[in-house]
Amino acid sequence: MHVYHDQLEVRTNGKKLYEITDDVQSKVGNRGVRNGTVTIFIQHTSCSIVVMENADPTARRDLENFLDRLVPEDADYFTHDSEGSDDMPSHIRMVLTHTSETVPIVDGKMQLGTWQGIFLFEHRRAPHRRRIFTTIIGE
Amino acid sequence: MHVYHDQLEVRTNGKKLYEITDDVQSKVGNRGVRNGTVTIFIQHTSCSIVVMENADPTARRDLENFLDRLVPEDADYFTHDSEGSDDMPSHIRMVLTHTSETVPIVDGKMQLGTWQGIFLFEHRRAPHRRRIFTTIIGE
Amino acid sequence: MHVYHDQLEVRTNGKKLYEITDDVQSKVGNRGVRNGTVTIFIQHTSCSIVVMENADPTARRDLENFLDRLVPEDADYFTHDSEGSDDMPSHIRMVLTHTSETVPIVDGKMQLGTWQGIFLFEHRRAPHRRRIFTTIIGE
Repeated sequence: MHVYHDQLEVRTNGKKLYEITDDVQSKVGNRGVRNGTVTIFIQHTSCSIVVMENADPTARRDLENFLDRLVPEDADYFTHDSEGSDDMPSHIRMVLTHTSETVPIVDGKMQLGTWQGIFLFEHRRAPHRRRIFTTIIGE
Repeated sequence: MHVYHDQLEVRTNGKKLYEITDDVQSKVGNRGVRNGTVTIFIQHTSCSIVVMENADPTARRDLENFLDRLVPEDADYFTHDSEGSDDMPSHIRMVLTHTSETVPIVDGKMQLGTWQGIFLFEHRRAPHRRRIFTTIIGE
Repeated sequence: MHVYHDQLEVRTNGKKLYEITDDVQSKVGNRGVRNGTVTIFIQHTSCSIVVMENADPTARRDLENFLDRLVPEDADYFTHDSEGSDDMPSHIRMVLTHTSETVPIVDGKMQLGTWQGIFLFEHRRAPHRRRIFTTIIGE
């Protein structure tokens, strides 16, 4: 059994989902682990990691629109707005989604379902560089 | 230290919570791992894994009703509806809940709290066969 | 590779976020694991574990206010209310946030981002003693 850490950097350009499935699988492949798990952890509080439908882009746009309505930018009781109107909603959207996900690895491949992809969900409007840790535990 | 993968299949019959605590504990018991973790991962994007109150069925019904209201089937801005009105809401409900959970194992038993159960949360109306991975890491 | 379990007890005093970052890091330090992961698991169904912005307390208050509005205590369709009006909302708030989080450990330190803290999110009004498991897997 071994543990391997790797890092990914993703450049984002506005509020939406960015697929990272191939990047994560590539880290798994490079480490040569046949059986185990990979934990994907994002080191930020204004974007998330989600597993989401990866076949139809309309599903992702509907999800983005839903979250824009669920967590509006102009709630009059928000006081944490030093970085603009998308600042506080970004933290709430992160808490309602996920900071880490753990995916099984069998025969060197992540065991995602047919329609599952791994995505970075960016909640800020301005461009950002986002850092993701992948930690593989296995043999 | 070892890693063991197992699979569960659950047949669902409509939008609700299906308890799988005993099935997961049974996988843990069969593998004979005394100390470690079990990660429960669901290979779908229209149902979830949640840890929830398992004593009172009214708590589960209230949760189901809350999500039906939070993510309505008839939102006029949804465009991803090729599989019916419960298609897009199922993906959103999945993102707002969980794809994976990791539970500690001590002396061969999952360390759930007194009122905690592990549930598959089905978000589609039609019957489905759902596949769940359990990955046990421990010794 | 080894696995180590520890427990934390946190006394809460009303609905809000309680930071536990230093307590978790202290468990990691005591076990002497240099590389691996720590899984934080909460053994309750009316409070959560979240990773959240830890610099500005106004961000936490805005999050608390958002959840009070998203999951109101007086929804007329709730039937699970034997323990009071904050009983059912506490379970929903737990399902919408997280029961477990897994954080990478490198050189003996959790790899949290600059603004990330780990918090117990209490969803009940009355004082409670809450039990958290930390499970460290690594070498």
